[in-house]
Amino acid sequence: MTVANQQIKGWRGVPFSEVKINDAFWRPRLETLKNVTMGVCLDQCEKTGRIANFAIAGGLTEGKFEGMYYNDSDVYKVLEGAAYSLMTDRDPKLEAEIHRIVELIEAAQESDGYLSTYYTLEAPELKWTDMEKHEMYNGGHLIEAAVAYYQATGKRRLLDVACRMADHYDTLFGPGKRHWAEGHEEIELALVKLFGVTGEDRYWKLALWLLEERGHGHGVGAIWDKEDWGPAYCQDDVPVRDIHEVKGHAVRAMYLYTAMADVVLASGDPAYMEALDRVWAHTVERNMYVTGGIGPSVHNEGFTFDYDLPNESAYCETCAAIAMAFWNHRMNLLHGHGKYADIVEKELFNGALSGISLSGDRFFYVNPLASKGEHHRVEWFHTSCCPTNLARFLPSIGQYVYAASEDGISVNQYLSSETTVKLAGGSSVTLAQTTAYPWDGRVELRVNPEQLDEFVLRLRLPGWCGSYRIYAQGESVTGEEALAENGYLVLKRQWLPGDTVVLELDMPVTAVRSREEVEANRGRIAFQRGPVVYCIEQAGNKELVYDEFAFKAAEPFVAEYAGDQLGGVTVLRGRTVDGRSCELIPYYAWDNREAGFMQVWVREAEDRRLYR
Amino acid sequence: MTVANQQIKGWRGVPFSEVKINDAFWRPRLETLKNVTMGVCLDQCEKTGRIANFAIAGGLTEGKFEGMYYNDSDVYKVLEGAAYSLMTDRDPKLEAEIHRIVELIEAAQESDGYLSTYYTLEAPELKWTDMEKHEMYNGGHLIEAAVAYYQATGKRRLLDVACRMADHYDTLFGPGKRHWAEGHEEIELALVKLFGVTGEDRYWKLALWLLEERGHGHGVGAIWDKEDWGPAYCQDDVPVRDIHEVKGHAVRAMYLYTAMADVVLASGDPAYMEALDRVWAHTVERNMYVTGGIGPSVHNEGFTFDYDLPNESAYCETCAAIAMAFWNHRMNLLHGHGKYADIVEKELFNGALSGISLSGDRFFYVNPLASKGEHHRVEWFHTSCCPTNLARFLPSIGQYVYAASEDGISVNQYLSSETTVKLAGGSSVTLAQTTAYPWDGRVELRVNPEQLDEFVLRLRLPGWCGSYRIYAQGESVTGEEALAENGYLVLKRQWLPGDTVVLELDMPVTAVRSREEVEANRGRIAFQRGPVVYCIEQAGNKELVYDEFAFKAAEPFVAEYAGDQLGGVTVLRGRTVDGRSCELIPYYAWDNREAGFMQVWVREAEDRRLYR
Repeated sequence: MTVANQQIKGWRGVPFSEVKINDAFWRPRLETLKNVTMGVCLDQCEKTGRIANFAIAGGLTEGKFEGMYYNDSDVYKVLEGAAYSLMTDRDPKLEAEIHRIVELIEAAQESDGYLSTYYTLEAPELKWTDMEKHEMYNGGHLIEAAVAYYQATGKRRLLDVACRMADHYDTLFGPGKRHWAEGHEEIELALVKLFGVTGEDRYWKLALWLLEERGHGHGVGAIWDKEDWGPAYCQDDVPVRDIHEVKGHAVRAMYLYTAMADVVLASGDPAYMEALDRVWAHTVERNMYVTGGIGPSVHNEGFTFDYDLPNESAYCETCAAIAMAFWNHRMNLLHGHGKYADIVEKELFNGALSGISLSGDRFFYVNPLASKGEHHRVEWFHTSCCPTNLARFLPSIGQYVYAASEDGISVNQYLSSETTVKLAGGSSVTLAQTTAYPWDGRVELRVNPEQLDEFVLRLRLPGWCGSYRIYAQGESVTGEEALAENGYLVLKRQWLPGDTVVLELDMPVTAVRSREEVEANRGRIAFQRGPVVYCIEQAGNKELVYDEFAFKAAEPFVAEYAGDQLGGVTVLRGRTVDGRSCELIPYYAWDNREAGFMQVWVREAEDRRLYR
Repeated sequence: MTVANQQIKGWRGVPFSEVKINDAFWRPRLETLKNVTMGVCLDQCEKTGRIANFAIAGGLTEGKFEGMYYNDSDVYKVLEGAAYSLMTDRDPKLEAEIHRIVELIEAAQESDGYLSTYYTLEAPELKWTDMEKHEMYNGGHLIEAAVAYYQATGKRRLLDVACRMADHYDTLFGPGKRHWAEGHEEIELALVKLFGVTGEDRYWKLALWLLEERGHGHGVGAIWDKEDWGPAYCQDDVPVRDIHEVKGHAVRAMYLYTAMADVVLASGDPAYMEALDRVWAHTVERNMYVTGGIGPSVHNEGFTFDYDLPNESAYCETCAAIAMAFWNHRMNLLHGHGKYADIVEKELFNGALSGISLSGDRFFYVNPLASKGEHHRVEWFHTSCCPTNLARFLPSIGQYVYAASEDGISVNQYLSSETTVKLAGGSSVTLAQTTAYPWDGRVELRVNPEQLDEFVLRLRLPGWCGSYRIYAQGESVTGEEALAENGYLVLKRQWLPGDTVVLELDMPVTAVRSREEVEANRGRIAFQRGPVVYCIEQAGNKELVYDEFAFKAAEPFVAEYAGDQLGGVTVLRGRTVDGRSCELIPYYAWDNREAGFMQVWVREAEDRRLYR
């Protein structure tokens, strides 16, 4: 294995714990998440035996293992999300509940550090015999929860459990020890996180070893024997440095690439960078829906062939959209390029956000781009990775907003918030961002360095944006300084406390078209405004029948902010080509009213190209 | 010939004499037109013998006919433009000059009413033997000038000349008399105008007869014998009611359709309407440049085959763009549909306006969409129809702004102005429009009926507009009322003096693409913002070489209003795909700085479809 000497200089993300969100769009969602979703997830984990499994494995109660072998992970993910919530809003009741669960987990850990209640209770003799059985996947989520809990409360108790478990892995696996290609990636990125808080090199090195194990025929287990799936299903078909194409199970693939991006920061291996760049292009340019959804097929919960993006049967697991944000956030920091933050934005306002109801207690596992009316949000799933993934993803969105670079600060996402960033030189800058994003493209930034300070302020210019204006201290910024570089406006200047920057992004409704290769969307258009992809659903369009209408791309929409609808959305009102009035709503907000059809890609009327 | 009984109910245009323009974009142009262009045109007409030809023909001076047989028309067109200028701004000096010319024209008319100085002086025996020799074309322009002069000053002198001439035509031509298919249309629309001021039915009936003469093999003259041109060159290949496709000389075709649209208002013949609708679609959807330019070929100054829209060799005569505005204005009034006013707008800000320099004393006859650097504005042309057409087109733009319908008022163009419109019911409404169009999409209207009054206010929603907001009395207008109908927002309500309506049209920069059929533009994009089509020229882009650069459609532009540049323009600053900074300016403003290349359609970088 080649590990390059040169250290890759990425940006440093500003952790969400240092980002105070006071945003009109996100703040109410975070409240709902904490007050509703968190309770729903804890209740369900309780009801379904997920929490009890730990108590039983720890010998604290009598009983039998209930549910699936990966159910531990749901508890960990809720715990992780709860810890994130606690970081920004203390809540003694929630803290007590978490503490109780931490004690159960601790009890369930075996003396050698092993922790996976399914095997402990059901088949201890079969530990480490089937790589598809999510032992390390569970372990990875434990680590993420432990790190979050430690960061939120300062308590080491769960972190110690996690370290014992990781050290146990280290005794079993690694160079010269047993082979292991975990069926569902997750442990790798978790180990890098554990390295981050403990400073122990062995954790990221174990992560690297686990990554390098893949693609060499070491896979053993039920999944590898399935004729029509094979090793590609869990990215075990080629060594990771030889990856060219995105394949297999979507969430697994994204977690793998996320880990590779994490590891490369420590290893500096250019082959990893090259593989990531290749597979990113392959994913985004050929295998991603306009919503940011990925993985079209229910069969393998994943990828099929290039440009296979059917709408009604789109699988687009919520977890995959979230994982896409994880990966793209890392890519953004690695490359300092806005196109990756564009994808994070896409998931935030579309593919991931659609997974949760406005009320916070109904979920989508599958996020199709069209439905005849049968697809609905439900309370919980047998396999409930998606609700618990939302429970940890949403409270941590603050981490995507700002980053520190060698030369200054980058604003990667637009939402009203405040943060203080430590510059490379040692001094601090407080940034206050005010915006009505995603409904309005005006972003105001107040820049407060401790004193006169020269540094670079980068503002992302979203990929959807065709034109903008930029002002500093009320004056138009001109020349090179007003132009995009790697997807950012780069304002290098001397900043004084109280300086203001205003970015006005033009935010019209635009009709977008797929690449011609996407058969499902030939003759179709979708509408987007700013980062928000729109859809048309039965509710609000009583007269329309699924797919029996068409739009002209040139037909204008009145874009109207309706504060009292769907939690406050900009509704697009327009007409179909035959003159019927209709209403489009953000895709993420669909199926929050009466049941009915929904479509993102609508038929385009023939005369679309008039005047060109 | 079938003339339907049913009268077609079109809108009534509000004449420009009733529209007071106080617009930041147009007012300075109108000043320049009057103070510079008008003088240039008069001087040139003097210098080149165009005016002297009348004096000589009238026996007031000695001399020989100079120039081309159609040169009388230039004098008439300048006269027409001068009259328009006088209508809004009196100017004794200009009025005296015009009066002098009117006397010369009067003198040049023969006793039977005949008037065309070329034949009078050069070949009186050959009158009415070659239908290509523009006798009636000249006559048509005389009529237009006479009507304008009469409307501007109340003086009948030139109108009497025009009537005598038209009556002379009437004695020679018409049912049972001689056949005549005038080679260059113009007389037909002029005769309808003459009918408009005199109320004499025989004028529009003669126009109708002249239209009906075409396409029956009556054409006689040099042009008909040219093997590669034939009767289609001057639209004499099919009867007008059988027209399906735009053919031949572009200006001639447009003048023909304009006349047909004029005549149909009186005749109500549905066959004319159908022919016009067919040929409009054929012109606009297959044979129009993005600038509104028409007629790609220098060979016939006109059309070739569908989708033949080469850029560098584009002919796009200024007169054809102006004539396109004439025709589309009529179509707008006939159909009450905004898509025609969209084309008027396109010509106003692009194809027609490009014909005149910012200084008002340099002109383009030919308006290509790309130039390696050899194409430049010049002072005058041997055949100088274009400068003189601009001299009459621009001072009359007020007529395109408002129209009265049976049920209210339509706002067809956006420019700061005031008008008073008489409603069908008899009461009057004063409208005051304030806007920074075309640089900003916000339009404010103050509606002042004499008293509480119910009527419809229509606001055009431009075809380029993807989204907008509409407010009445500061409140969002919602529901059906906020939606487009035939390209207009239709606000039907009770209006009180002082009511305000605000329309906010989103005006981002957008990358436009041609239909795939247009070979010249495959792999290319053009940029547009609001109604303004942009181009890139050497000046301001010193480092770039003609066609040796490319753009990504997704690369954003900073849209910056530069009040001190090119008479005040919004400049687009951005980057080529290889990162070089560059500047785009409105197409109409090109070749007003140092000589160099220019391109509207630029190469598109390969990765254009990312994120779809």
